[in-house]
Amino acid sequence: MTDTDRPTPGVGRRRFFQGAAGGAALGALAAGGTARAVSAQGATATSAEDDRELVDLTGQYRFFDQAHPPGVATLPQRHALYMTFDMVDGSTRAALQALLARWTAAISVLMAGRPIGQVRPSRDEAVGQDTGEAVGLAPATLTVTVGLGPGLFDQRFGLATHKPELLAALPQLPSDKLTPETTGGDLSLQVCSDDPQVSYHAVRNLARMARDTVATRWTVNGFGRASAGPGQQTPRNLLGFKDGTRNLRQPVELDQHVWLRDAGWMTGGTYQVVRKIQMTVETWDADRVSDQEQVIGRTKVEGAPLTGRQEFDAPDFAATGAGGQPVIDPQSHVALASPENNGGVTILRRGYNYTDGIDQYGQLDAGLLFIAYMNDPDSFVRLQRKLGASDALNEYISHVGSGIFAIPPTPASGHYIGEQLFT
Amino acid sequence: MTDTDRPTPGVGRRRFFQGAAGGAALGALAAGGTARAVSAQGATATSAEDDRELVDLTGQYRFFDQAHPPGVATLPQRHALYMTFDMVDGSTRAALQALLARWTAAISVLMAGRPIGQVRPSRDEAVGQDTGEAVGLAPATLTVTVGLGPGLFDQRFGLATHKPELLAALPQLPSDKLTPETTGGDLSLQVCSDDPQVSYHAVRNLARMARDTVATRWTVNGFGRASAGPGQQTPRNLLGFKDGTRNLRQPVELDQHVWLRDAGWMTGGTYQVVRKIQMTVETWDADRVSDQEQVIGRTKVEGAPLTGRQEFDAPDFAATGAGGQPVIDPQSHVALASPENNGGVTILRRGYNYTDGIDQYGQLDAGLLFIAYMNDPDSFVRLQRKLGASDALNEYISHVGSGIFAIPPTPASGHYIGEQLFT
Repeated sequence: MTDTDRPTPGVGRRRFFQGAAGGAALGALAAGGTARAVSAQGATATSAEDDRELVDLTGQYRFFDQAHPPGVATLPQRHALYMTFDMVDGSTRAALQALLARWTAAISVLMAGRPIGQVRPSRDEAVGQDTGEAVGLAPATLTVTVGLGPGLFDQRFGLATHKPELLAALPQLPSDKLTPETTGGDLSLQVCSDDPQVSYHAVRNLARMARDTVATRWTVNGFGRASAGPGQQTPRNLLGFKDGTRNLRQPVELDQHVWLRDAGWMTGGTYQVVRKIQMTVETWDADRVSDQEQVIGRTKVEGAPLTGRQEFDAPDFAATGAGGQPVIDPQSHVALASPENNGGVTILRRGYNYTDGIDQYGQLDAGLLFIAYMNDPDSFVRLQRKLGASDALNEYISHVGSGIFAIPPTPASGHYIGEQLFT
Repeated sequence: MTDTDRPTPGVGRRRFFQGAAGGAALGALAAGGTARAVSAQGATATSAEDDRELVDLTGQYRFFDQAHPPGVATLPQRHALYMTFDMVDGSTRAALQALLARWTAAISVLMAGRPIGQVRPSRDEAVGQDTGEAVGLAPATLTVTVGLGPGLFDQRFGLATHKPELLAALPQLPSDKLTPETTGGDLSLQVCSDDPQVSYHAVRNLARMARDTVATRWTVNGFGRASAGPGQQTPRNLLGFKDGTRNLRQPVELDQHVWLRDAGWMTGGTYQVVRKIQMTVETWDADRVSDQEQVIGRTKVEGAPLTGRQEFDAPDFAATGAGGQPVIDPQSHVALASPENNGGVTILRRGYNYTDGIDQYGQLDAGLLFIAYMNDPDSFVRLQRKLGASDALNEYISHVGSGIFAIPPTPASGHYIGEQLFT
């Protein structure tokens, strides 16, 4: 798509999606019961023949039935690909609108386990609409979560009046060692599934169809989970400790801490904070385990608070040991992060482990793709101000990447993500 | 381990493994029925108490029952972590010997789904022997395949007389764009499993216990498979095409093409060639699919040869079309690589897809972790000479990394990988 994008007259049928990147035509969007149209004509026009592959998105995809955006309360899958994008210079408001519509359509198809268009177009002259590597694979519980960064609401696209109320760039936080290459973005995709090939196919095709509108910014490839959802065994992060024991699990907790209420067009959505947290695992591994347990405030194998015996025992931050010292160090991670010590503040975590291979010094380069959801980003800021200033864990971790995104509510059938921005 | 490593008198019991890195003691190895000992004393001595955790490796691990090294004929798992290592300056022959013994012991334990030692040592002063992140996870069909690079047989360790007959650095090949950072290595680990956290735990702990003897060199994190084993559906590579349709599948084929016979101490082992093949997937995706099919020689969706209708139809390289031209382009990948056109030469492929995220130009950085096994590395050299010179696919791929390794046979119970090198 280019800056020649322009609105075109409405199209009567509610089919609006054609899968391919670059040479793709985009049809009509029916919004709010009124047929309105967005057109994004790529460099290569497609023929009427290929237009027959347009996907009708009026209700047959489960995606549109969900009360909240997918990939937030969804039971955490085993892999996550996270990628952010910047609008390229000259991209127009119409191009952004078209992109969100096309992504919506593609995501609903991908989450149903289908290719986003023809893998092998009937015309020999055509490029594939779908890149093909997920043909024959199951949906693998794929979810795609679209995020809108604060930058989208600057002067470029005339969207300032629709800015989600609490969306703002995160302030500088203690322990930040952010690199621009892994920070920020106008848009983000969190792609989770139980099959890394399904996830890669999704992000690749979504990136591809956005190629003329956005530039890729950064990405992290996560595995293995590092936070539990309801009913899941608590997984372990690469420190070897259980992670997510006290994560939010109940719908009533999500209503209280995650989903937005009375928030205008964002009602039913949420905010996402993502941090790429590098762990110096080789240094950590050289630490005695008794010290690791003091740093975390829990036992390594069972994951019990140092004042308890079992994982789900409530930590007793007042308990003291023989010398009168607290059993759980007040600077331990569990003490600093606990809701009891933060006026009830809590967030929904959805963490994944990652590895970037080997660093320039030959050390294993790995860490945590921390993703969290909350209805007030200040919850994260308050927690991280405290953790970044005092956490005994800081000796072993660095926050090297960061982003904040508004996660719009799931559109109704026939509508698209963020459509309300353009009203 | 340091260059103060020295042989010590034999120890009567056949227990020889203690899991931790750095502070680990290593006991005795019983080899060839004669108790011989290798000792590698780390910087921190461990107490008699922790020595009780020594693992006895005389037969209770399935690893030792296998006729051939694991991870070669094993049905390809869904993830592969590949890492190579160089012996650090000053490492001794004894240190190499101890490392192979300790790796053998650790691998047998890891493949049984157990930690390699105490996650939480009983002594508060001790570091963990196992890093812990796989506690509670199933073995996930983990296999670890140890490779010995040609460099091991230079003057450093006095092993020249034991060099596997056909092990030599690969010659320069057409289309090579190798970078030293992703090429070579004295030792390699191919870690495959169906759970990336299980794989990462394995490679991390094996690297950790080798820390004073070897330096990490390069690593690739593969997913999704790109070659089929017997009974598996043919998976797809990131070109979107099925990969592995004509892979070796039958034991009799492996006997003929993969396993070494009459090869002295290497009998029952094999040779491994690994290539990191970068694919310019965004350029590929911009190519018309009809052209992609000409480049590969197969249809994209079904994977049939262009002369056939179904995936497993035999390609007919003599068939000509309307204009008298061959239906399957002689420069296509399938034509150049087929045994019919290579005097019957064939290799066992065990490929995985990989992604390195985004490159410096913002393009998706992805490709194929090509791993192949053969009883004569010249098979690969001949194939790649031809493919590198002519393959129509070369426009879209670059060989950026490379390695060749001898894969020793599985040791018998009570013995270790490569033990025959030190006789």
